[in-house]
Amino acid sequence: MNDGFLRNAWYVIAWDHEIPADGLFARTVLGEPVLVYRTADGGLTALADRCCHRLAPLSAGRKEGDAVRCGYHGLKYGPDGRCIEVPGQDRVPPRARVRRYPLALKNRWVFVWMGDPERADPALLPDNFSCDHADWCYLPGYMHYQVPWLLIADNLLDFSHLSYVHDKTFGGTPEIARAQPLITEIERGLRIAREVRNVPPSPYYQSFRPFDTPINRWIVYDFVLPATLLMHSGGRPAADADDDLRRAVQLHSCQALTPETATSTHYFFQESHRADQGDAQTRQRIFDSLLTAFEEDRQMITAQARNLALDPAAPMLPLAMDAALVRFRRLLQQQLQAEAAAGAAGAAGAA
Amino acid sequence: MNDGFLRNAWYVIAWDHEIPADGLFARTVLGEPVLVYRTADGGLTALADRCCHRLAPLSAGRKEGDAVRCGYHGLKYGPDGRCIEVPGQDRVPPRARVRRYPLALKNRWVFVWMGDPERADPALLPDNFSCDHADWCYLPGYMHYQVPWLLIADNLLDFSHLSYVHDKTFGGTPEIARAQPLITEIERGLRIAREVRNVPPSPYYQSFRPFDTPINRWIVYDFVLPATLLMHSGGRPAADADDDLRRAVQLHSCQALTPETATSTHYFFQESHRADQGDAQTRQRIFDSLLTAFEEDRQMITAQARNLALDPAAPMLPLAMDAALVRFRRLLQQQLQAEAAAGAAGAAGAA
Amino acid sequence: MNDGFLRNAWYVIAWDHEIPADGLFARTVLGEPVLVYRTADGGLTALADRCCHRLAPLSAGRKEGDAVRCGYHGLKYGPDGRCIEVPGQDRVPPRARVRRYPLALKNRWVFVWMGDPERADPALLPDNFSCDHADWCYLPGYMHYQVPWLLIADNLLDFSHLSYVHDKTFGGTPEIARAQPLITEIERGLRIAREVRNVPPSPYYQSFRPFDTPINRWIVYDFVLPATLLMHSGGRPAADADDDLRRAVQLHSCQALTPETATSTHYFFQESHRADQGDAQTRQRIFDSLLTAFEEDRQMITAQARNLALDPAAPMLPLAMDAALVRFRRLLQQQLQAEAAAGAAGAAGAA
Repeated sequence: MNDGFLRNAWYVIAWDHEIPADGLFARTVLGEPVLVYRTADGGLTALADRCCHRLAPLSAGRKEGDAVRCGYHGLKYGPDGRCIEVPGQDRVPPRARVRRYPLALKNRWVFVWMGDPERADPALLPDNFSCDHADWCYLPGYMHYQVPWLLIADNLLDFSHLSYVHDKTFGGTPEIARAQPLITEIERGLRIAREVRNVPPSPYYQSFRPFDTPINRWIVYDFVLPATLLMHSGGRPAADADDDLRRAVQLHSCQALTPETATSTHYFFQESHRADQGDAQTRQRIFDSLLTAFEEDRQMITAQARNLALDPAAPMLPLAMDAALVRFRRLLQQQLQAEAAAGAAGAAGAA
Repeated sequence: MNDGFLRNAWYVIAWDHEIPADGLFARTVLGEPVLVYRTADGGLTALADRCCHRLAPLSAGRKEGDAVRCGYHGLKYGPDGRCIEVPGQDRVPPRARVRRYPLALKNRWVFVWMGDPERADPALLPDNFSCDHADWCYLPGYMHYQVPWLLIADNLLDFSHLSYVHDKTFGGTPEIARAQPLITEIERGLRIAREVRNVPPSPYYQSFRPFDTPINRWIVYDFVLPATLLMHSGGRPAADADDDLRRAVQLHSCQALTPETATSTHYFFQESHRADQGDAQTRQRIFDSLLTAFEEDRQMITAQARNLALDPAAPMLPLAMDAALVRFRRLLQQQLQAEAAAGAAGAAGAA
Repeated sequence: MNDGFLRNAWYVIAWDHEIPADGLFARTVLGEPVLVYRTADGGLTALADRCCHRLAPLSAGRKEGDAVRCGYHGLKYGPDGRCIEVPGQDRVPPRARVRRYPLALKNRWVFVWMGDPERADPALLPDNFSCDHADWCYLPGYMHYQVPWLLIADNLLDFSHLSYVHDKTFGGTPEIARAQPLITEIERGLRIAREVRNVPPSPYYQSFRPFDTPINRWIVYDFVLPATLLMHSGGRPAADADDDLRRAVQLHSCQALTPETATSTHYFFQESHRADQGDAQTRQRIFDSLLTAFEEDRQMITAQARNLALDPAAPMLPLAMDAALVRFRRLLQQQLQAEAAAGAAGAAGAA
């Protein structure tokens, strides 16, 4: 499909804790309704949330052991998506099945693979280690956006916006916008590194520990296809040596965008502090800061999307600060073309 | 028009009591705004609710005797739809008129004929006798759906959904889904009969009279074009003879779907009990049960419609339980084609 | 563009008092987001409210002296629309600029010119004198309509609707609809004059001064392109001579329509009384009457627009009372064609 969605990719569909112990969970991903539930063996299964009969969402039905029964006319499906019972008829037609999606649980994120199941490769899962690591603490976040996912990816690929969107929250200072990031290509993505030296510690940083001198800050993140951000950031007194982290604040953040439809997006996020650098209050304070700042992003990006809707053909002027997002969009286009070519080859092979 | 609406048909536009004694009532039917009001002779008239001048709804104006005056610029129309006064000019142009729709009141349902007035035949009105019959009691219901009418007709044509959508309300048990209905063709529709024997009496049935044994249940309904359901149902102790109704619960239900637009529908309904089998409380209890159960339907069908909107091309897998709805859709197509052919013939005849 | 919007025209974008002393004001005009703010020299500037970089609205940023800084990535623009700073790069690309719109402040109305800046001619500003005149008093009004602007212009071009829409408020009597207006062509518009003699004074007129006899009323207004109404109206005892205004009520009203999008409209309005014919209470009473009556219009026109949306091809029957609106629509078409021809000529000249 040429809808700008990469299909052979893992997408976060939920935080692990969002899937109930004994119920049904539904979320739309790339325009497809997906059902997720737990099986008795401790596993998870993801099925198309759309009965093959009359297209009712299975999530409006009920779980029966490891099976799910449609709440409309009672078709019952096993966790592999095969229909195993059709009320009122003895024989279940072989075509009676719903698509099963490959699914992976990694560090509390539940990922679904939206493309060719043969190609679902756990090695492609992003390294969201701080989501489940004894050394790191966080509160899990979720936000819904009524904008196309690429506009949010743009935002995350250019942190110069911190200086303006978040000048009152995240410690955004003009220095961040001025600091040229170092951008390097990595496997399926980009690494973007930024350092600002000798800046006043923002209230955000002060909230971790009192700094009484200017600080050096670093922000280093990988942004990997389709849309996961994995970031180390922190600050230390400007006088301290670069390898001296004793008085440093260290953070790690995992953020993932999952297109819901062409015009709406799921956003999963956390920012972790070191377990030895804070307590439950710190955790809550970081979470609240994220919410405040990400709401600032949401308002700006939603306003941008409204302007785009008024004139979808309005041109954008590329600037130096767009380096990462331009390169990322190029990577995405390459992958989309590779996928289209593979699809065409597959279709030819099947013929 | 090829919008999937049968035009040469009676559609319920309102319950009789919805039309005020001396005011204007408006409802949109098949995408056309329709005005209904009472005339001094005790009759009812239905006009296009759209002034021929600047298209303002006449229902925003006022009734003047048997005439209606547009509230925008004051054009006055007689109950035949002819304009009889244009403020500021002496002569009323002959083209100044709005369409008058044939209208029929039968057993408290107000029907409007949306097609060729010449073909409006009272013999085609459905037999909604229990809506106005001394032996039967009910409370009138109306519900608005934000889905295409055919999805609701599908629902009504396959009662196997009772076992799942209404398993907690209407006495839906798996036995109903398992019971193959007997489907026979009738004039402009289908008769669908279902019997389930020796099932536990549901709370719904228990609410009419205490059953202390399993019961036999029957559900027999006609579904006639365009979209009226007329149903006898009931239950009696399983031990009683089939023709022994002394300990039976007997119900009759009339339900009608009227497309409002391509994507929204009016739903008129009642379920009657025998006058000698209950009182005002019974009536209220039945009505409340209907509301609860029909709200279950509405939620399921609306969820189904959302899935359809996500992927309008998604295929549906036909199953045995679809027998009636498949046959009904075939009847509808035949009528639509007959109407199109008659329209083409009429156009040719006029040329 | 062929969207039915005249571009070489002044449009009211705001009342003067709506623009903050030191902040940013945004409103969409002809589908284009426009930013307005004050400069240190006491002037006003209007810029495209859409950063040239990623299209974020500049109004979501901040004012810095006479400049505005985008709140997303910090581009800074002077009041001429030229970008004067791009964070993170030394050189500002020459293409980095946003459109500046010609702007004029006249009698408390802020006008923006949406077409070719070369042709922005202050002589084309309407004469809204009573908006800022020692002899006239009013309260300023604004209303938002969810309908295309031409439907509201239609309303203002045919006051026969006063007799029906405003029969309980504005002193609308059938006599107004019956009174044929005298329509004459003026520069870029029409003059529409109506007189009704010997009618009972309406409560509205009675609220200015007690009349104990029938009155003669006059309503004379210019409606000039694109959509400004300038109206003298009043009434005096029927027995008084036409040039005797001693016992007359005199009003002047300025009203302007500004298309927001193809389907929504801004409406600016006031009705002034003579400074020597009332006090603050009078002012408030007139304003409240306007709000009540214009809300009647809004409901009617919005209902009309709904009917149009149900069937955009439904024909309208022209009547005598449409004389002014038919002529006005013709004037508009001529101007639109002239604009299209000039655009084509300009394009040819540029080639």
